[in-house]
Amino acid sequence: MSQRVEFELKATDGAARTGVISTPRGEIRTPAFMPVGTAATVKAMMPESVRATGADILLGNTYHLMLRPGAERIDRLGGLHRFMNWERPILTDSGGFQVMSLAGLRKLTERGVTFKSHIDGSKHELTPERSMEIQRLLGSDIVMCFDECPALPADRKRIAESMRLSMRWAERSREAFGDRPGHTLFGIMQGGLEPDLREESAEALKAIGFDGYAVGGLAVGEGQAAMFDCLDYAPGFLPANKPRYLMGVGKPDDIVGAVKRGIDMMDCVLPSRSGRTGQVFTRRGVVNIKNARHADDPRPLDEACSCPACSNYSRAYLHHVFRAQEMISGMLLTWHNLHYFQEIMQGMRQAIAEGRFAAWEEVFHGTRTLGDIEPV
Amino acid sequence: MSQRVEFELKATDGAARTGVISTPRGEIRTPAFMPVGTAATVKAMMPESVRATGADILLGNTYHLMLRPGAERIDRLGGLHRFMNWERPILTDSGGFQVMSLAGLRKLTERGVTFKSHIDGSKHELTPERSMEIQRLLGSDIVMCFDECPALPADRKRIAESMRLSMRWAERSREAFGDRPGHTLFGIMQGGLEPDLREESAEALKAIGFDGYAVGGLAVGEGQAAMFDCLDYAPGFLPANKPRYLMGVGKPDDIVGAVKRGIDMMDCVLPSRSGRTGQVFTRRGVVNIKNARHADDPRPLDEACSCPACSNYSRAYLHHVFRAQEMISGMLLTWHNLHYFQEIMQGMRQAIAEGRFAAWEEVFHGTRTLGDIEPV
Repeated sequence: MSQRVEFELKATDGAARTGVISTPRGEIRTPAFMPVGTAATVKAMMPESVRATGADILLGNTYHLMLRPGAERIDRLGGLHRFMNWERPILTDSGGFQVMSLAGLRKLTERGVTFKSHIDGSKHELTPERSMEIQRLLGSDIVMCFDECPALPADRKRIAESMRLSMRWAERSREAFGDRPGHTLFGIMQGGLEPDLREESAEALKAIGFDGYAVGGLAVGEGQAAMFDCLDYAPGFLPANKPRYLMGVGKPDDIVGAVKRGIDMMDCVLPSRSGRTGQVFTRRGVVNIKNARHADDPRPLDEACSCPACSNYSRAYLHHVFRAQEMISGMLLTWHNLHYFQEIMQGMRQAIAEGRFAAWEEVFHGTRTLGDIEPV
Repeated sequence: MSQRVEFELKATDGAARTGVISTPRGEIRTPAFMPVGTAATVKAMMPESVRATGADILLGNTYHLMLRPGAERIDRLGGLHRFMNWERPILTDSGGFQVMSLAGLRKLTERGVTFKSHIDGSKHELTPERSMEIQRLLGSDIVMCFDECPALPADRKRIAESMRLSMRWAERSREAFGDRPGHTLFGIMQGGLEPDLREESAEALKAIGFDGYAVGGLAVGEGQAAMFDCLDYAPGFLPANKPRYLMGVGKPDDIVGAVKRGIDMMDCVLPSRSGRTGQVFTRRGVVNIKNARHADDPRPLDEACSCPACSNYSRAYLHHVFRAQEMISGMLLTWHNLHYFQEIMQGMRQAIAEGRFAAWEEVFHGTRTLGDIEPV
């Protein structure tokens, strides 16, 4: 296994790419979808079940973990991998995005952000330096720069100022991260929906130099069309030989559209969160398991799916346990959703490798258009 | 595999017994602990995980299943085993105990009980005949007679009248059950803490004739000492060549004391319910995982336990996910508790078979007396 974090691009098909990120903790096949393990668990899942869906890497949230149980505590306990029983790669965000979402509870300066915990109101500070320290204590394999991310829409001046602050913080993050063999630091491009600001941000990051680059500041309220517009040009500003990570995306068609535009990595709470609210993603679109039409339906959610929910249970059962608020509902539906998301990634990886991404995409969209099977 | 339900007594040690109940759906090693799958799921567990703990049989609740999703619906969907993905034996209670617990919401007559659903207030009736029909629709392997069970303390007159009503209902249950190869009906002894009423009840049941007998009306508020007093004589009124089932018991020391007194089967929600509230049963007694003393403890709950919670996680992690209200907390602690309960059963079965139950019991109680390991 590689003792360094390295990216090998194996094939391209149009702008879409497939490759492998090698790390001491295992390989990450790209395009990769990273399930979110906010508080040291992918909600409703055992880690071995997450792996069984095909996930190569998880995302952990610096903000949540620093507040509870605390980064120093996780370090004393042997690091996040051991703590949560996931020995494969982990990417951690910088905490910036969650802190910025706190709105009234936080104060932003050149130095960093002070904020109050949503759990107990205690006061905390995050700076580029502290974010790097926390991510080191957690033992993260892929560390993210500490950045600021304004919600969209925002005016150009606000976006430019915020981007430039993030670039200064990127330099401080790089400095604070230092050289840590087996671990790597990704820069985060900002600039909203302004091409010249995106380019300025990319140039600043490349001048600092990173092993991977995220497209930040999207999926924050701009809508799919605007996001795709940005992804039509923004990935092109980044080095072709480094992985590109689109943060916080998304729905299945967002993911496919992003990969089509040159994105290699993504993360989102959607499959796990939806699993707990009864929203199921299938090849034929979204199914709401709470709907009465499923109460007597002996068929699986998706007869072509090999996940435990589809292999062993009827829609009627899944409907019943959702209505009865049984934990197995969230367990099974989350498993299905994560399985389906990973199946999309595997389908895209193979299609790109074989130069037939367009045909794969046509089937993907065509099957969704069919909609759910007819009620019994 | 047996096409009939048959009990083979393999060894006795004092009053304690070990044997096997053979059914078309598999063997039940006795003494057996049955996890409770109230609403067609053992809460927080996948059925394959329940099996992995060593369970040979589950209990399903007629009252809950008749209300939601409905017995006729489960029948149309292929029966309870298929519905909940548990192909091994299932015992169903009669619904009587839960209906009686509704107090103000129900009305009792010679014919049966009318009551209102706790879910939607709809009106329902349970009679011996309807209970047999529901348990047939569910596909239950071991069916329980419909009975009435007064809460203790109750006066002798009330207990006697109730017991005699239950005996008339037992006869109607036997009649309604008919002859169903591969399935069997158990009678339920009542009589509170009155030896002569217990004997009268046992005689009435034996005159009707059943393939197994439950000791009902215990674990309803009388306390362990009173329960054990009753178990010192009541099992002796029942045929030695038929399984004896103590309903709704219990804590680990209740279970051991019951087996010592000749009980072959038990069920209780305790291991699964406690798993969701952070109460953990270990060889060294009860551990409350929410206590702050566990926050930095890198050790497993029980170093000698081979369940996933103990094999893969620290007390610190289990404490963290409990405090963060993560679903994996209930999943892991329930798994541990069920594993521990089954380990007790396996230990007793082996000890009885080898004629060393007293020595086993001494170690069981001695280890509990040690209390939890010292804090770090």
